Amino acid sequence: MSVKNIYVIGVGLIGGSIARDVKNLNPNISLFGVDSNPTHLKEALELKVIDFKATLKDVANADFVILAVPVDVSVKLLPEVLDLVSDDALVMDVGSTKSDICKVVENHAKRRNFLATHPIAGTEFSGPKAALLGLFKNKTNIICEIEKTAFKLQEKALTIFQIMGMRIRYMNPEAHDKHIAYVSHLSHISAFMLGKTVIDKENNERDIFDMAGSGFASTVRLAKSSPAMWTPIFKQNKENVIETLEEYISNLTHFKEKIQKEDFETVFKEMENTNRIKDILNGIE
Amino acid sequence: MSVKNIYVIGVGLIGGSIARDVKNLNPNISLFGVDSNPTHLKEALELKVIDFKATLKDVANADFVILAVPVDVSVKLLPEVLDLVSDDALVMDVGSTKSDICKVVENHAKRRNFLATHPIAGTEFSGPKAALLGLFKNKTNIICEIEKTAFKLQEKALTIFQIMGMRIRYMNPEAHDKHIAYVSHLSHISAFMLGKTVIDKENNERDIFDMAGSGFASTVRLAKSSPAMWTPIFKQNKENVIETLEEYISNLTHFKEKIQKEDFETVFKEMENTNRIKDILNGIE
Repeated sequence: MSVKNIYVIGVGLIGGSIARDVKNLNPNISLFGVDSNPTHLKEALELKVIDFKATLKDVANADFVILAVPVDVSVKLLPEVLDLVSDDALVMDVGSTKSDICKVVENHAKRRNFLATHPIAGTEFSGPKAALLGLFKNKTNIICEIEKTAFKLQEKALTIFQIMGMRIRYMNPEAHDKHIAYVSHLSHISAFMLGKTVIDKENNERDIFDMAGSGFASTVRLAKSSPAMWTPIFKQNKENVIETLEEYISNLTHFKEKIQKEDFETVFKEMENTNRIKDILNGIE
Repeated sequence: MSVKNIYVIGVGLIGGSIARDVKNLNPNISLFGVDSNPTHLKEALELKVIDFKATLKDVANADFVILAVPVDVSVKLLPEVLDLVSDDALVMDVGSTKSDICKVVENHAKRRNFLATHPIAGTEFSGPKAALLGLFKNKTNIICEIEKTAFKLQEKALTIFQIMGMRIRYMNPEAHDKHIAYVSHLSHISAFMLGKTVIDKENNERDIFDMAGSGFASTVRLAKSSPAMWTPIFKQNKENVIETLEEYISNLTHFKEKIQKEDFETVFKEMENTNRIKDILNGIE
């Protein structure tokens, strides 16, 4: 791998985890961290997620830049980063939305230095402390508009993903954003609103949470996620997110009406049909 | 423990797991299984979840009967079981609803032989194969109307729960059903309808599920649960379940409208407030 140094912009869960994997695979690579949060940068150094602190301007020296910041920051920073980097550098983003980021550099002179990716892995935690070695092993990485990236840089990126153990899927940004709204963005809203509904109701009765079992914990887990990360995702993917929410609300309302009408045969059948999720989930968990 | 034999009616996830714990704690106890499903009974014997097959009438010989069947079957069987058992026998149910079961034996001559319990533990699987040793360790067990059970039988039950490592909470059946709707029943519907929404949309595009990560898997996990178990729970706890669903739908609709109106400050704040679930969940997971 002809990469001697990597600049990670945003040393949090995703950026930090990629850094850990890369360092583990090749200890000779120098890892530079850039972050608007000085505490995170200090933590990342202490935890050896990165080797050195750096500033945005330093990316001029980068072989490889990983942009791992909230998606609203990504669309602002990416053109600046591309302006700064050398002609041979690879710049990759890892955001959960792909249309806006692809659009913002559509006509950039260095478009061929950029690769749009979405490595689908994570936990509900954030910051450099949340960075995990091996987080991406056997996980899916969606790559968008591969044909717009220079061939040599494609090769460089794919080699790294392969060593990290990721499965690659190619998709256009619009299809990515549409489907990811169903299999990821909706789950987060579902969990956040479940958490809200229960907290609102049981606010003054803390003992009630003694009644909550592992099922509740599992369903509401994503409500621990970072609002700073998720608000801009919902903003960028507004149309798709609203569509999924409307379908979800309609299904919930329909289910509620069946209970109200005591049509428990339909209630049973809807659950039985959805049990198919067992087969679908095989391999994800 | 003066219990020589235990009859488990319904040798599935919960009944089978209790049987495993009891046998582990005292190998001298004889475990008899009763089940309307002959395959389950055979499996339970093969897996050594029970020592012997039995029929309902045999409970006349029981020291202790555990009724671990769907809640609609429980309300039918409990009066029959109480009719059959000896004066010293303890009969316990383990259902996820408590009002109907308490009502159905309110005036039964052997009401004092019955203890209404809800051990809050489980997985999304069912049947004797799903029975786990130690499932109830450090879990909460809600006991309703303790004062209506004979003192000596209370003592017998509490000794068993203590050895199993359960935390006991006392609650009236109405309060139990109201709160459990929030922290358990709603999570199940939320997961089932999330699964349905995604399956309906992505039915013809199986590749899409490659995009689903561990977050989706966690949020939708309960959609693998048994419709035969859950339909009668929603039926018995209809009013409370509808109330929780209405609040959940209203919160989702409100969140959707904030996204539509591009009020992302409120979107952020709602998620930030719900992050408190982190502290609440400590100790559950």
